[in-house]
Amino acid sequence: MALSVEKTSSGREHKVKDLSQADFGRLEIELAEVEMPGLMACRAEFGPSQPFKGARISGSLHMTIQTAVLIETLTALGAEVRWCSCNIFSTQDHAAAAIARDSAAVFAWKGETLEEYWWCTERCLDWGVGGGPDLIVDDGGDATLLIHEGVKAEEEFEKSGKVPDPESTDNAEFKIVLTIIRDGLKSDPSKYRKMKERLVGVSEETTTGVKRLYQMQETGALLFPAINVNDSVTKSKFDNLYGCRHSLPDGLMRATDVMIAGKVAVVCGYGDVGKGCAAALKQAGARVIVTEIDPICALQALMEGLQVLTLEDVVSEADIFVTTTGNKDIIMVDHMRKMKNNAIVCNIGHFDNEIDMLGLETYPGVKRITIKPQTDRWVFPETNTGIIVLAEGRLMNLGCATGHPSFVMSCSFTNQVIAQLELWKEKSTGKYEKKVYVLPKHLDEKVAALHLGKLGARLTKLSKSQADYISVPVEGPYKPAHYRY
Amino acid sequence: MALSVEKTSSGREHKVKDLSQADFGRLEIELAEVEMPGLMACRAEFGPSQPFKGARISGSLHMTIQTAVLIETLTALGAEVRWCSCNIFSTQDHAAAAIARDSAAVFAWKGETLEEYWWCTERCLDWGVGGGPDLIVDDGGDATLLIHEGVKAEEEFEKSGKVPDPESTDNAEFKIVLTIIRDGLKSDPSKYRKMKERLVGVSEETTTGVKRLYQMQETGALLFPAINVNDSVTKSKFDNLYGCRHSLPDGLMRATDVMIAGKVAVVCGYGDVGKGCAAALKQAGARVIVTEIDPICALQALMEGLQVLTLEDVVSEADIFVTTTGNKDIIMVDHMRKMKNNAIVCNIGHFDNEIDMLGLETYPGVKRITIKPQTDRWVFPETNTGIIVLAEGRLMNLGCATGHPSFVMSCSFTNQVIAQLELWKEKSTGKYEKKVYVLPKHLDEKVAALHLGKLGARLTKLSKSQADYISVPVEGPYKPAHYRY
Amino acid sequence: MALSVEKTSSGREHKVKDLSQADFGRLEIELAEVEMPGLMACRAEFGPSQPFKGARISGSLHMTIQTAVLIETLTALGAEVRWCSCNIFSTQDHAAAAIARDSAAVFAWKGETLEEYWWCTERCLDWGVGGGPDLIVDDGGDATLLIHEGVKAEEEFEKSGKVPDPESTDNAEFKIVLTIIRDGLKSDPSKYRKMKERLVGVSEETTTGVKRLYQMQETGALLFPAINVNDSVTKSKFDNLYGCRHSLPDGLMRATDVMIAGKVAVVCGYGDVGKGCAAALKQAGARVIVTEIDPICALQALMEGLQVLTLEDVVSEADIFVTTTGNKDIIMVDHMRKMKNNAIVCNIGHFDNEIDMLGLETYPGVKRITIKPQTDRWVFPETNTGIIVLAEGRLMNLGCATGHPSFVMSCSFTNQVIAQLELWKEKSTGKYEKKVYVLPKHLDEKVAALHLGKLGARLTKLSKSQADYISVPVEGPYKPAHYRY
Amino acid sequence: MALSVEKTSSGREHKVKDLSQADFGRLEIELAEVEMPGLMACRAEFGPSQPFKGARISGSLHMTIQTAVLIETLTALGAEVRWCSCNIFSTQDHAAAAIARDSAAVFAWKGETLEEYWWCTERCLDWGVGGGPDLIVDDGGDATLLIHEGVKAEEEFEKSGKVPDPESTDNAEFKIVLTIIRDGLKSDPSKYRKMKERLVGVSEETTTGVKRLYQMQETGALLFPAINVNDSVTKSKFDNLYGCRHSLPDGLMRATDVMIAGKVAVVCGYGDVGKGCAAALKQAGARVIVTEIDPICALQALMEGLQVLTLEDVVSEADIFVTTTGNKDIIMVDHMRKMKNNAIVCNIGHFDNEIDMLGLETYPGVKRITIKPQTDRWVFPETNTGIIVLAEGRLMNLGCATGHPSFVMSCSFTNQVIAQLELWKEKSTGKYEKKVYVLPKHLDEKVAALHLGKLGARLTKLSKSQADYISVPVEGPYKPAHYRY
Repeated sequence: MALSVEKTSSGREHKVKDLSQADFGRLEIELAEVEMPGLMACRAEFGPSQPFKGARISGSLHMTIQTAVLIETLTALGAEVRWCSCNIFSTQDHAAAAIARDSAAVFAWKGETLEEYWWCTERCLDWGVGGGPDLIVDDGGDATLLIHEGVKAEEEFEKSGKVPDPESTDNAEFKIVLTIIRDGLKSDPSKYRKMKERLVGVSEETTTGVKRLYQMQETGALLFPAINVNDSVTKSKFDNLYGCRHSLPDGLMRATDVMIAGKVAVVCGYGDVGKGCAAALKQAGARVIVTEIDPICALQALMEGLQVLTLEDVVSEADIFVTTTGNKDIIMVDHMRKMKNNAIVCNIGHFDNEIDMLGLETYPGVKRITIKPQTDRWVFPETNTGIIVLAEGRLMNLGCATGHPSFVMSCSFTNQVIAQLELWKEKSTGKYEKKVYVLPKHLDEKVAALHLGKLGARLTKLSKSQADYISVPVEGPYKPAHYRY
Repeated sequence: MALSVEKTSSGREHKVKDLSQADFGRLEIELAEVEMPGLMACRAEFGPSQPFKGARISGSLHMTIQTAVLIETLTALGAEVRWCSCNIFSTQDHAAAAIARDSAAVFAWKGETLEEYWWCTERCLDWGVGGGPDLIVDDGGDATLLIHEGVKAEEEFEKSGKVPDPESTDNAEFKIVLTIIRDGLKSDPSKYRKMKERLVGVSEETTTGVKRLYQMQETGALLFPAINVNDSVTKSKFDNLYGCRHSLPDGLMRATDVMIAGKVAVVCGYGDVGKGCAAALKQAGARVIVTEIDPICALQALMEGLQVLTLEDVVSEADIFVTTTGNKDIIMVDHMRKMKNNAIVCNIGHFDNEIDMLGLETYPGVKRITIKPQTDRWVFPETNTGIIVLAEGRLMNLGCATGHPSFVMSCSFTNQVIAQLELWKEKSTGKYEKKVYVLPKHLDEKVAALHLGKLGARLTKLSKSQADYISVPVEGPYKPAHYRY
Repeated sequence: MALSVEKTSSGREHKVKDLSQADFGRLEIELAEVEMPGLMACRAEFGPSQPFKGARISGSLHMTIQTAVLIETLTALGAEVRWCSCNIFSTQDHAAAAIARDSAAVFAWKGETLEEYWWCTERCLDWGVGGGPDLIVDDGGDATLLIHEGVKAEEEFEKSGKVPDPESTDNAEFKIVLTIIRDGLKSDPSKYRKMKERLVGVSEETTTGVKRLYQMQETGALLFPAINVNDSVTKSKFDNLYGCRHSLPDGLMRATDVMIAGKVAVVCGYGDVGKGCAAALKQAGARVIVTEIDPICALQALMEGLQVLTLEDVVSEADIFVTTTGNKDIIMVDHMRKMKNNAIVCNIGHFDNEIDMLGLETYPGVKRITIKPQTDRWVFPETNTGIIVLAEGRLMNLGCATGHPSFVMSCSFTNQVIAQLELWKEKSTGKYEKKVYVLPKHLDEKVAALHLGKLGARLTKLSKSQADYISVPVEGPYKPAHYRY
Repeated sequence: MALSVEKTSSGREHKVKDLSQADFGRLEIELAEVEMPGLMACRAEFGPSQPFKGARISGSLHMTIQTAVLIETLTALGAEVRWCSCNIFSTQDHAAAAIARDSAAVFAWKGETLEEYWWCTERCLDWGVGGGPDLIVDDGGDATLLIHEGVKAEEEFEKSGKVPDPESTDNAEFKIVLTIIRDGLKSDPSKYRKMKERLVGVSEETTTGVKRLYQMQETGALLFPAINVNDSVTKSKFDNLYGCRHSLPDGLMRATDVMIAGKVAVVCGYGDVGKGCAAALKQAGARVIVTEIDPICALQALMEGLQVLTLEDVVSEADIFVTTTGNKDIIMVDHMRKMKNNAIVCNIGHFDNEIDMLGLETYPGVKRITIKPQTDRWVFPETNTGIIVLAEGRLMNLGCATGHPSFVMSCSFTNQVIAQLELWKEKSTGKYEKKVYVLPKHLDEKVAALHLGKLGARLTKLSKSQADYISVPVEGPYKPAHYRY
């Protein structure tokens, strides 16, 4: 697509696939609202007081229907919002259209190139004169990364006049990041530092982004406070686990229509995401084999009746391979060559480096046959057999299906809203330093509580004497911080 | 669509949505072939001898990718084939395109009107001069019905000069059938009798069609031999059960993206289809309630931990309703009025009369909001709350998703091929009278055996003394006819 | 034990382990009654009319608490009853004591020798002057076998003067049968023929006994009518499946306390019993591998995510082996030698010839270490490693635990009561010839219906127009005979 | 039993039920060793260096077969050991006999009175001249409690001459504790202070004991270092969860033989123990309803398809009630009065105050019928219906069955051994203050790793670049402290 910012009739900036899908998006947003009681409760509780009045929020997070409900919760609480997706395939174009038309500046479409992706990220952070956002909602940490790299480059440039050299890295994506920053230096050599100055903080959605934040905290490189939303119980033990249990088979079915029952499935990694994937595959009738590096997680898999082997042990007999590790170099082209004809290879971890796409694309004589978007058959010349790779190795549940369902995202996103409220409320109090924080347990419990009524649940109430007996307040929080659920 | 037969460049008759989708259909057919070892084994075993040489086969069965592999198995064995779908929403247009271009006459597209549907059925049976097909593959019995009604009308017309009166029935669909027959009488008053004369027999795919056949057998109305494929073990205990276990959640997810976990789901009917649906919903984390008329099936549900209640007991607290009964008038508009906002109502039984669509459509003041094709929200005026109806009450797995996956359909369709071969081989021997037959157990076991290798299974072999001990041949069949599996 | 018939103070014949356990037995019988609604409903419905008035019933069926409730249902309906167990380990001594004291003549104790077992069977059939029983309740067919073999021997003796020669067979148990018959010939050379004359019929409980009956029917050897209770749906699809799903882990736990989670379990045979066992093991967290000869059952196992291999493939890596085949020679001593140290080997099929106990016992240098009754460790001399064999290869759920729970046995035994009533009612009508019959479906459905209320279920009622639409009576039966559930 | 210490022929002190069961105990201990790879690995790794040389260890922990393997691991590493059970019903008498004969001083039998229980606890701590133990293994904290209460009383006595008054408390058990301490003051007014002086530390096994420790830490009352073994991942997420998943149905089956399938079961509390119980009941075919106070745990239950209600909502319709809360006053006599006839009520939490046994025992006119030990039917006079209470409200898995299986206890107990080693190694370094500690993650991972081989698992190894990418050492630990598994 031609990379120019467009405007709606009301003057809102955007770049989406097709604004005419806004009505369809609106209908699905309305359905989602009924399934997202936590976000709707936030609107009811906080809407009247407009706590985000004056706040600019930039979000880099899959631009789906569920995210649309999050965005409109932020705007309902008074915020101005700009948004981009954090994955080139994860945008739902009708959701983007509805938001662009009705609520916030959106720069996202399904099937961006990497250049387009980073252009969108830039636009999302670009609030025009006066610098950047007050708050960031990040997923995977790309918005945070861009600012940190930008500040680093500006400081170096000021000091030595040196500009970033895209050729200094082999990583195709990081080349683009450096190019953007280099080019930005020319027009405004303090853009990212102004952003940093204004920024109150970031709330980060996912394991991968959180890992980056803790690394920066450790080296002292973190430039602003961060709330780790991922490790709210109501996020990681719900979205990661139950969300993937739902969306992994959904992605498999939409992409390939393959019967899961009777198949041998390999799940690489048995963290929360891997647990959800393995459960889904087992329940659908597959025989599931897990690969793990961590003996505790491996023992958990065994207790659930799953076999724990190495990828090498099973590479030639399995039908379905799923990576969930958050690590890199999990399934290499050399594995893929040994797989059965039409074995399915996919990734549900945040980044696309779990599967060796580069090795596959550059394999001599390999042939790519696109069955349909995000479903490719790659045929090896030696055997003339092929494997089926989903979403080019990126998040298959968002690339091939519609990601996690609304209800579980309501848990995650209610944490996001609470985190954003907390950062904004404490912006001048010094409560949050340039560190990574998790939300206090009572807020975590509150998020859960907001989702019980929709499912018809009735909680038991502690008596005072029971609460004293177990040394907790009657109204909670009920568990110590180290409790694992 | 304008109802006129078109021709491919090679002269093949057809009427499909878009021939240009043929390449896409071909790619998916090739994927499906790998998942359909039973059909591919038939091609290998029987292809060289061309047993269907000279046979005309008409099929009325969901025109999907899997059916495409069936059709091309029939043609690979020498048959000439004409095809239509047996449901207005079940056609996959790319499958139809590929078959029309490459293999057989097809009259089918997704989203036919009822008039179009019966026009397609007529075309499928219309082999031009020389009458109708030699063999029918039927699913639900519409092709069989048309011939039986046609013959009845012709006989009456010959006797009394009376033609069928479409106004004699309230049933909108049957009006169309009578119209077609009435109009046909004018051009050829013995068309259906000529068809009947030529017909060697029918093989019927599904419970509903089989029920009709047994009713006709009982009254002596059956005009030609029929093989009941549905009650092959490798059909009803696989396709109906495991197929629906796969395709029910698939349909729900594609149509609504709703989170199944935590929801209350009602499955009406606990036959093979209901068992598959209930298993899928339970495994996805729903709390499942079953309604049943049959105390044995009800007791089975209870043993699986499912609650058994009446629809009235739970209509206002459940989130998802699925009909699987094969009966009519299961969920009436009066039930739907009492449901929660955005309750999902869908049917996975063969016909669309399980859900009272007429009552819904004619409810005073009701408002229909189409979210997307096959997903409608119906809003009741009194409460301004709505329910979501999938596929207009028709088979939701075919209307909203792609039906059953290839592997399980390979079991069903291998039975179809075997049944067709059997009818054709015995066409002149009198082995089959005008009755309903099931395939012998050794063929049923053969179908299963053809599907084991793909899943890596290794069968144990009986020794002679073991076989004698349990009084079976070493090579099977291994079970008495009454065995229930 | 000294084999002499004893008498209670009221003069009832018996031979049990310890009459003083009668109070304990009575308490558990009372608990069981609450769990056996079908039998209690029979007492309520038929008790007042005393339909068994004058009938002598001999039963050869595991003398458990549940059987006690069956026996007392028969006596409540007017019958006189004599009973023995059909397995040397399956008697619950407190149940036998309570029945002996209060209700019926019992000859059974846990841990009979084979000689004792057949002595008990003889006693059970011995009604003193006037011959044998009017009706037999059989389980596995041993009572029926004894009469058939007895009649055969008497006829041969009358014809040729030849008596049975125990040395003519290698089978240790059959030697005993022949001895009993030979010795009986001396005192009364027409005892079994008089029995046969009086006998109205037998109702047979289990797959193995039914197989024998059909074999006799086929050769014309069957001497009296038989009702196949096993193949009532409410028996084979409940008792065999759900009963074993309950009692297999129960037996494993009581015998060995072994953790099932994480283990590799091999289930030989995937019929109803095997399905129940595999489900239980999978749910407890084992990885389950199935061995099968029947490709259909094998394919069912695969659809449930179970691996299908041969015993040879897995013999050295599995932890638990269960035979459920109803066939012989499944696990041979040569397999056992290759197993891991402390692998558990057990059988839940009717007879003890699924496991090669003879081969094990006679293996040179093998050492048997009895951990506790019915739990033996057998150590092989070559490796000094051992395997653990349960219940000496006999039914482990009855030998090591208490068999199936009351509720599911209520289904089975209500069928037994109905079958006995049917035979007795029709004793003079000629309705039943010397053949094997199954109960009509409406009675099967009735049995199920009697068990729904206890579990809080509410059935849906068909309207007349719905019933007509699917061509069944409003009040059932609802399914055709071939329906598989 | 007469409360006097006995001696074996070798002079070892003990008080057990029946020393002649030692052979049987030994056989089962040998079986258990094969299932407890973690403990056996400790023997192999540490045995040669005899790290516990000179250490006296007192243990208060269910005296089962598994504990026997723990004790003999401690002695194999050089310790002298004295032991008592931490529950009046949990001792396995054959295990106690084998240990008493062969390895350590044991004071424990199944079915102690409360007076006997505390006498045993005293004996366990009584090392004769020279005071108490160096180390304590505690489960629930009773040994720790006795020392803390003893020290408190001695200090008060020294200060004011006041002795504890048993009448000062309503709690029957605490009366006994005070009596023991009061009586001890007479003979040695500094006994517990001498114990405290010597004590290096305690390692605590279970949630309830840990809760007590944290309470003491908070008030500064803790007298010596404590290691919280319960919150090792390889303890709480295995023993509590998978152990109960195994032993809850085991206890139900042995106590009542009730069919779980089809029943309505209420699980009070959805922590690790409740999760295990609910999973077991659901898998066995029950319909499970959860009660919870914590909205997060409640939402987890809902995601698994379980209904969340209050006890009041379901008290009159459920069949089985299990308490798992660790809190008090969960099921009161007023609930029990409303239950169905023969509803089963049991507790699997550490203490017996979850069920209102006092209220039940003192209910006017209530009648107790002991079916068998640990299985009582209590009949209410108004309705003449009864409920069945297991193990008098105490841990039903240990009271009615044999507790958790060896394999999972091997995980827990390997943590115990490591904790004891750690305390002993650091006894003079000051590393551990009077606080509560958890084991470092690398030891937790080591425990898991020791259990993988037995189950045939193969771990994947991180490459250096992968380890760097996720910022962990190649050899672990792999997760941050807050990770929840």
